[in-house]
Amino acid sequence: MTHTDLQDYSHKRLNILTGEWVLVSPHRAKRPWQGQNEAVSNTVRPAYDDSCYLCAGNTRINGEVNPKYQDVFVFTNDFAALQKDSKSFSVEDGLLVAESETGICKVICFSPDHSKSLADMAPKDIQKVVFAWQKEFKELSENPNINYVQIFENKGAVMGCSNPHPHGQIWSQSTLPNEVDKKNTRQLDYYNKNKNSLLGDYLAQELEKQERIIFENDSFVVLIPFWAVWPFEAMIVPKKRQSTILELNDAEALNYAEAISVLTKAYDKLFNTSFPYSSGIHQAPTNGNENKHWHWHMSFYPPLLRSATVKKFMVGYEMFGSPQRDITAEIAADMIRKQL
Amino acid sequence: MTHTDLQDYSHKRLNILTGEWVLVSPHRAKRPWQGQNEAVSNTVRPAYDDSCYLCAGNTRINGEVNPKYQDVFVFTNDFAALQKDSKSFSVEDGLLVAESETGICKVICFSPDHSKSLADMAPKDIQKVVFAWQKEFKELSENPNINYVQIFENKGAVMGCSNPHPHGQIWSQSTLPNEVDKKNTRQLDYYNKNKNSLLGDYLAQELEKQERIIFENDSFVVLIPFWAVWPFEAMIVPKKRQSTILELNDAEALNYAEAISVLTKAYDKLFNTSFPYSSGIHQAPTNGNENKHWHWHMSFYPPLLRSATVKKFMVGYEMFGSPQRDITAEIAADMIRKQL
Ligand SMILES: O=P(O)(O)O[C@H]1O[C@H](CO)[C@@H](O)[C@H](O)[C@H]1O
Ligand SMILES: O=P(O)(O)O[C@H]1O[C@H](CO)[C@@H](O)[C@H](O)[C@H]1O
Repeated sequence: MTHTDLQDYSHKRLNILTGEWVLVSPHRAKRPWQGQNEAVSNTVRPAYDDSCYLCAGNTRINGEVNPKYQDVFVFTNDFAALQKDSKSFSVEDGLLVAESETGICKVICFSPDHSKSLADMAPKDIQKVVFAWQKEFKELSENPNINYVQIFENKGAVMGCSNPHPHGQIWSQSTLPNEVDKKNTRQLDYYNKNKNSLLGDYLAQELEKQERIIFENDSFVVLIPFWAVWPFEAMIVPKKRQSTILELNDAEALNYAEAISVLTKAYDKLFNTSFPYSSGIHQAPTNGNENKHWHWHMSFYPPLLRSATVKKFMVGYEMFGSPQRDITAEIAADMIRKQL
Repeated sequence: MTHTDLQDYSHKRLNILTGEWVLVSPHRAKRPWQGQNEAVSNTVRPAYDDSCYLCAGNTRINGEVNPKYQDVFVFTNDFAALQKDSKSFSVEDGLLVAESETGICKVICFSPDHSKSLADMAPKDIQKVVFAWQKEFKELSENPNINYVQIFENKGAVMGCSNPHPHGQIWSQSTLPNEVDKKNTRQLDYYNKNKNSLLGDYLAQELEKQERIIFENDSFVVLIPFWAVWPFEAMIVPKKRQSTILELNDAEALNYAEAISVLTKAYDKLFNTSFPYSSGIHQAPTNGNENKHWHWHMSFYPPLLRSATVKKFMVGYEMFGSPQRDITAEIAADMIRKQL
């Protein structure tokens, strides 16, 4: 049952995973919009584009030729943000503090078909992407210099994606990035106090309430978290506590693929457009520990707010204060459920 | 003297004010760009636009008529994200945690001239904006329900600004937003340990090194912080420790206005465009305490990276991991200094 105050009055909600707050202004959704409209391209892309550096058989900027891959293809990023073998150093010069950071960045093509996105792929084919994530994660986690692996996707030009070919990225590195560090600490605190998974206990509560649930199958729940920041932010959470995606068996991997498929298809229907987002999987560090406090999950941060062309801007107040949203998580869940 | 490692190898730098890290990839600046280009409008706007709801004498959406103001004009936001007198409540239902948040949101027009931005205004006129910020800050800080006042500006359509008329906003509220809370804690810890201002000590170090300094006058320093996230992020810091802008005397207010003028003019010259940004002033909470640990400062977060049309996208890795930048703070400072 909804707290009706939460639908009527400005308030803040706590993100239990990061300890940060989001400001919610439910009364503000009716504000008129005279600002920037995003370009929207609903033109169908060809299945093969000879100028695309990710299509099978094409040559990349560094001269390497992509194999004639049939499903998923992974390669090391030609312009990696993290260098593998660069010098190790540390600067502590008064209040100037820096540390070298090394890592490995990879690109993963989800399909040879240039025209597709995850939303257009069958769960069986998305399962192949999950298998590739597992394989890469495993290999990287065995590297003693790698302590964290961030799998993510930027979809759509508005999310900084420079190539529409269906693909994601994997950045792995020696230390924990900010967001992961926060979630690591909060989950550990909770586990130490309650001998239980924070996200597992949260999930039980949400499954009872149902109001923010979008979809579930035997192994996964898709929901709008209570503390969602982006208008249609959603989360895919395994029902069983698992530290990383390596614990998924094949049936669970297919259920995970189904959850991704259901959510991305609903997104596309919502504003009748190929729905842009950044998605990412947060999982346990690859530091060799058991990390029993970790409950891995995948989040989707889509920018659109009112239509295919009007996005939410996380700017002034959001950058200097806290993130702010207009429609509530409950309304967003309703709107997405209607697309199923 | 620059640590040359910082110009050559991937590393992370610590933001001493928030405790978070930024990933720096200096080797990556040469990455080709095939992604989204921003629309750029360099058309000169008229000094008065009869369809603008911020121009003097025009009628706003709620029917109110703007006065025929001569310099600065402040009014309460017609679509405020925070409600002033809304109900007070608190939700603690297992892992669902929320609290009502009230506040007052205002809009501040910097000039009646629709065609101008801060970069086009004389320091004497910007000083009037500073005086208005002081007046509003004082009034809000005397309100017992207001414990923090966030002054900010979103400039440019790419920063979600829905009206090009030169204006900023002031959102004030009962609790500390996330970013302010972090800076409050870190400054307090430092002050307790060192009996000195964190930012004051940092400033002394930067003034000695000079490599990230853009400009200084008697009362202010403009610099690129060592831990800058946005490509051309900059900070204006008072040389004397002051908790809030209320401590500025008239001469200092003019020096502050000059610092804003110098920085925004240099920005506009950099890519020969009206440079978009979000700016914000972080200052002490208005909780009635002395807040001697606070050293107020103004930051500018501009999105442009390579030209008037190519911006930095803070997406996938940045949202799920840590912010990431390509050009170093030192290179950015050099590029801006050349515009002076
Ligand atoms: O208040 P405005 O200018 O209509 O709106 C703009 O600034 C606000 C505060 O940063 C943001 O919440 C909005 O997303 C943005 O479009
Ligand atoms: O790596 P890409 O796709 O060229 O680049 C995109 O994703 C990166 C990781 O989120 C970001 O740092 C870039 O700003 C963005 O344009």
